[in-house]
Parts: sequence; structure tokens; C-alpha cells
Amino acid sequence: MSLITLTTDFGTKDHFIGAIKGAIYNELSDARVVDISHQITPFNITETAYILKNAYKNFPKGSIHIIDVDSELSVENKHIAIFLDDHYFICADNGIISMIASEINPDKMVEITIHNTLTSYSAFVKVACHIARGGTLEVIGKPINELKQLNEVYPSISKENNKIVGAIIYIDNYGNVISNITKKLFNEVAKGRSFEVSARHYKFKKVFLKYNDLINFELPPEKRQYDGEKLAIFNAAGYLEIAIYKSNLKSVGGASTLLGLGYRDSITVKFL
Amino acid sequence: MSLITLTTDFGTKDHFIGAIKGAIYNELSDARVVDISHQITPFNITETAYILKNAYKNFPKGSIHIIDVDSELSVENKHIAIFLDDHYFICADNGIISMIASEINPDKMVEITIHNTLTSYSAFVKVACHIARGGTLEVIGKPINELKQLNEVYPSISKENNKIVGAIIYIDNYGNVISNITKKLFNEVAKGRSFEVSARHYKFKKVFLKYNDLINFELPPEKRQYDGEKLAIFNAAGYLEIAIYKSNLKSVGGASTLLGLGYRDSITVKFL
Amino acid sequence: MSLITLTTDFGTKDHFIGAIKGAIYNELSDARVVDISHQITPFNITETAYILKNAYKNFPKGSIHIIDVDSELSVENKHIAIFLDDHYFICADNGIISMIASEINPDKMVEITIHNTLTSYSAFVKVACHIARGGTLEVIGKPINELKQLNEVYPSISKENNKIVGAIIYIDNYGNVISNITKKLFNEVAKGRSFEVSARHYKFKKVFLKYNDLINFELPPEKRQYDGEKLAIFNAAGYLEIAIYKSNLKSVGGASTLLGLGYRDSITVKFL
Repeated sequence: MSLITLTTDFGTKDHFIGAIKGAIYNELSDARVVDISHQITPFNITETAYILKNAYKNFPKGSIHIIDVDSELSVENKHIAIFLDDHYFICADNGIISMIASEINPDKMVEITIHNTLTSYSAFVKVACHIARGGTLEVIGKPINELKQLNEVYPSISKENNKIVGAIIYIDNYGNVISNITKKLFNEVAKGRSFEVSARHYKFKKVFLKYNDLINFELPPEKRQYDGEKLAIFNAAGYLEIAIYKSNLKSVGGASTLLGLGYRDSITVKFL
Repeated sequence: MSLITLTTDFGTKDHFIGAIKGAIYNELSDARVVDISHQITPFNITETAYILKNAYKNFPKGSIHIIDVDSELSVENKHIAIFLDDHYFICADNGIISMIASEINPDKMVEITIHNTLTSYSAFVKVACHIARGGTLEVIGKPINELKQLNEVYPSISKENNKIVGAIIYIDNYGNVISNITKKLFNEVAKGRSFEVSARHYKFKKVFLKYNDLINFELPPEKRQYDGEKLAIFNAAGYLEIAIYKSNLKSVGGASTLLGLGYRDSITVKFL
Repeated sequence: MSLITLTTDFGTKDHFIGAIKGAIYNELSDARVVDISHQITPFNITETAYILKNAYKNFPKGSIHIIDVDSELSVENKHIAIFLDDHYFICADNGIISMIASEINPDKMVEITIHNTLTSYSAFVKVACHIARGGTLEVIGKPINELKQLNEVYPSISKENNKIVGAIIYIDNYGNVISNITKKLFNEVAKGRSFEVSARHYKFKKVFLKYNDLINFELPPEKRQYDGEKLAIFNAAGYLEIAIYKSNLKSVGGASTLLGLGYRDSITVKFL
């Protein structure tokens, strides 16, 4: 039995998550449902795209991903189901998938045409259970050729090829701010040149690969004072991130609060 | 194997949720446990009643719902198990069930009499596993005839039948404020008359059925400015709600913060 | 199939929880994964130790506990796997286990030696799945003899044996502050003497066993005013706790906010 994952902006207090899981189990008693995230900022498509891109790959092929963010059906916000990279995605056509689809072409895309219910999630559950039972996309929708694009997930590269201008697309649990600049793009443009990463008036000459690359382990522990130090790092997802070592948003603060870096602020890399 | 759902005010940080799930799996290794909510405001019975009413129905018949909110056992706070609408509910007799039981009569109600443990949740787990194994309510409790009532979930109707005075019983993840006035009651009293919904000094002449009924899709997208607009809506659960279009409590705010509407504030409908 | 539990400081918004669960299901399609907590204060080892100690015991013997808090691999932060009290623990050697291991000796301890991946969680997942398939610790690590200790989880006892000086190690969902003084230690030192518990300038002459032991049920309900009253209690986990009756951090406040008691503040018991 396929896994069904859930990614929403519903929060975990309201009855919605219980309702959607109940509806799945009611249709498919042996379903296996896994939460990816329900804490997405309400209506934030970019956050959703980032979370989804970095979570889905770990799941087994054939997994079915329901993404319910900004999905109220309208003439301009259609419901779609996509088969891509051996995974199924069920969501509104609002750009959520474009970060994944920009790297891997979808194999199948349909607009969902079975809408006999008021809430988006009940339509999504019906489609997910249909797929989990082995049903095809053609039965529940009609083929489409295009997906809505989400432009803010792509950085721009200067004509002279000596600058990448990116933007913050995500702030994580530790307050680390994550840009839309991938390590792959960075290396392609850098071609071995030295560089300077800027975020507001902060500059970084190095990009680490692990947080504790910052530490000089030859110093005796009592001489090390790294907590609260800022650094640039390619995070495990492969994105350029500005971080504070051992940050904590609820006490000492994180990069977002301490450096004043927010969603959509720019991050620039100059190559010298 | 029956599903066991959990609804608590434990939060998700402490060890309690792990402990309760561990205890269930320890008794019933093939149990299927589903979270409804653990983020209920501590000791808030009304919130619990609203969440439970709107979540339980989606689960398969025979599901067992553990609700652990304000459940410390005392001479005045008894533990009960109820069979109602083909679902089992295990909780304290503190009014949690009255919103459901006001619409559907319980088939069986017992006061739980097996209390060999200190914490409420361990007693609830024992009862849930007993039921999941096919046990009957009579074995773990003695029949009762009455449930504690929760008055604040019912609005009042004026003698002249031209006014409903309700109250806010729930604030959701988006900051939407939800009253205790159902669409069903509204329509029964309205009998087709025109009306005015009031919440503080805000007035609404329409009640929508979908959030984007607010949008005039004939306008070109750049001329539409709806984000932050207030509206009245019958939400998917069938309750009269005051909402802000595309609200976000953490940034622009929601109806609760922007309109200053809080838990227990009144919402009035006048029929003309 | 063994249960695999997860305890992390990842929060539930980011993609990490989805990624770790996906990775487990990808290796072991019939795995059973249960969340203990993902809301641990970032890098807080003491909180983790407290939560873990009180959750793990409820799970079936043979359960596998992945704990990913402050686990980035370094020369000073090794990854370990432990078999103790018939449970498996997989984590960094940063003190997380010392609260459990101080009471029960580990049967086996190894340093994990299979590290072919960048993130801690992917190594932990590999080890967990290895164990779940019946593999032994020897295959994935080399034996060690010592665990890093976490001193702040132990209170001190005065030479004269008439005083215990403890500290707050945890603040729960209700704002109750929990000390590192166990009921067992308290009783061993007390030997029946009367006592006074102090936290800042607040004094307590009684330690309750249930919150509602505070209530005089013989008073008519309208004459009882207990909400907001402070009390000392041995909580269900067996630790001395300062609580506020029916507290709520988001509205009226809890012991932490109302009494100004924070993490690491001292709690003293004098015996008379």
C-alpha cells in the first residue's frame, strides 16, 4: 500500500488534520499516512515549494503527496495531479510544484475533474485514495500541458557572470535564513573564483559545509566562544544559508532576528 | 483493528504524547493511533467540543476517541466512556461530548470504574485497548443516564424570533473567529428574510459559502485588492464565521487580532 | 516489526521530519514510526534527557529510539548506539542518555562507525533500520565503555543531610516548572521529617500528589477560588514540580511566567 503524505498550512490545533486523516482511513482502512508539515505560513507557496522539494525525495517511489496550501478551488486556481520522478503530487496549480518541476519534467499532469464536495481536502483525499488503489490519473482528470510558475524561487545571474542575486525563500526552525541560491548554481558560476556573500551589510568570504567547520577543535573547550557567531553554509538541502551557530529563536535569537534578515530579502554573491 | 484517536491539551513538546502512544502500543502492538489535536488551549472544554465534533465524523465507524482535556479524576470530574453515532468516546464528564450529544443521542454511557493508576491517560488507554479488542463498556464501567452540559455552545434566539445572539467559541489557525451559530439554525430562523450579522461594530449583509466568493474574477488580477478584506462565511463545518481574506496571524493578522474579536465575544444576527 | 521513535529539536515546520520518516519508510516499508517530541528547545540536552526518560519506558521492549538533538558529528561529538533496559537508543554522545543511564546500566554501548552521509539523521536512520531488521550493534559500531555525563540533572545534598539543592530542568506545556529532585530522593533524605520547599521567595510546606488535592470539595463550587493558586507537587513522572492550578501560558500565565521561575533556577528543600 502506497504512502500518503500531507503538507498543509492548516496548523495542528484545528480539526482539519484529524478530518483529512479520518477521511483517508475511512476510504482506505490500511492507508499509511505521514505528515510532512502542517505549519506552513498560511498561503505561502514558496515555503511550501521548498519544504516539499526537500522532503519528497526521501520517500519511497510511488508515494502520494497531498499538498493543501492556498487550494480553494476557483476559475483561476485549479486542482491538479502530477506524476513526476515516480511520485504523485495532488495540489492546486499555484506554483507549489514549480521548484521540483524546474529540475525534473513531469511524466503526467492532469486537471482534477471530480469535484462533488465543498472542501479541497476531500477532493484531494478522493484522488489520493484512487491512486493508492492503483487508479490512473486519466480517470480523475483531463491532461494539461503547463504548470503555473513561481518566479521567486530562481535567483538572477548578472550578464557579466560575476554576480548572483538571490533572495531568502525560507526561515527554518533555528532562525537560519535560506536563499534560493543552490550550491550547484553557485559552483557553475564561480568556476573556482573567490567570492563574497552579502546579506544586508554582513559579508562572508567562506561557505561552510557543516556548522562545526566553524570550530577550531585544537583550542581547549574553555577558550572557544562560537555560540552566536554568524556563518554562511550550504545546508544539507544544497542551498546557501546564513546561520548563527547554535541559534535559538526563543532565547538568544537566530540569523533571522539577530541579523534582521527576512523572507524575500536579497542575498548576493559577487565573484572576484 | 480499530483506530484510536487522541485529542488533548498536552502540547507536542512534553513527553506526554509519546508516553500515551507508547502505552497503547505496549498493550496493542498492532494499534493504529491518529492525532486529532494536542494544541487545545489548556483546560478549554469548548474548543475541545468544537474540534472533536468536526473531526470524529470523518473517521471510520467503530473508531475509539480518547479525549484528555481537564481530566484529572475527582469526585466531581468522573471518567466516562460513551458509544454514540457508532463511535466510542473516552474522556472526563466535563461537557466535552455535549456538542455532539445534543444532536445525536448516545447509545451507551458508562462511568469508568477501573482506576488502578495515577494518571488519567493510563486509565483511558486501558479502556481504549479493551474496546479495541472487542470488549464491552459494561465490563469497564457502570451505566449512567446523564452527561454534564456545556451551555456556551448554544446561541439564544429572541422571543420574537428575529434575532440570534451567539458567541465566539473557536479561533482557528488563520485567526478566523467561529461562532456557535450553525447554518442550520440560521436558516431555520431566517426563513428567507434578509439579515444583518454584527460582531462588535462590524456589520455583514451577506454570508458567503466559500472564501473566494468575495472575488470578482472579471476584474483583471492587478485591479483586485481583496487580501485583508473581512467577510462572514458559513465555514466547511457549518458554523457562522467572521474571516479576513488570506489572513495570517503571524504577519498581517487575522479576524481575531484585526477586528478585536475574542473567545466568548458575542456575534448577533438580526432578521429584518 | 520494532517501533522506531523520534525525539528531535527540528520543530514540525521544516522538511526534516518528513525527510527522516521518508528515509525510514524507504528502507523499511513496514516500519512503525512514532513521534515523541520535535519541539525540544534547540540544542537543549537537559530537556531532551527529561522527555526521553519519561517517554521511553511506556514503549514496548525492543523499541528503537532515535534522538537527534545537537548531533552534528565532530571529533568531540560522537554518534552512539546503546542497548539499555531492553530499549535501543541512537544519538550523539552528548549527555542525553545520562539521566536514564544513571539509574539503569547499559547492556551494550557502541560508537557508530558507519558514516557515509552528511546528515546525522541519515546515519541514525541506517542504524535504526539495521537494528529493526534484527542486526546487532557490533556490526555498526565499536564498543565503548563510557558515556558523557550531564551534571545538571543531579541535585546536591548538604553534608548535614538537611537540605537538597536542585534546579529547574524543564518547563512543561502548562508552564509548570519541574526540578531535578525526585520523589525517591526527597523521601530518602526526608526520612519523615517536615520540610519547606523554596523557589525564589515562594515557600511550600506540602507537596501534593494530584493537582486537585488542592481543592476542598466540601465547599460549594461558587465558593472555590483555586484557579491561579500555586502549589508544589510530585508530578506523574516522579519529580518535584511547582505549578499553578489550571494555568495557561497563553492567557493567565503559568508558574514559569507568574512566579518568574526559569530553566536552571534553583529549587531548595530544607528538612527541619
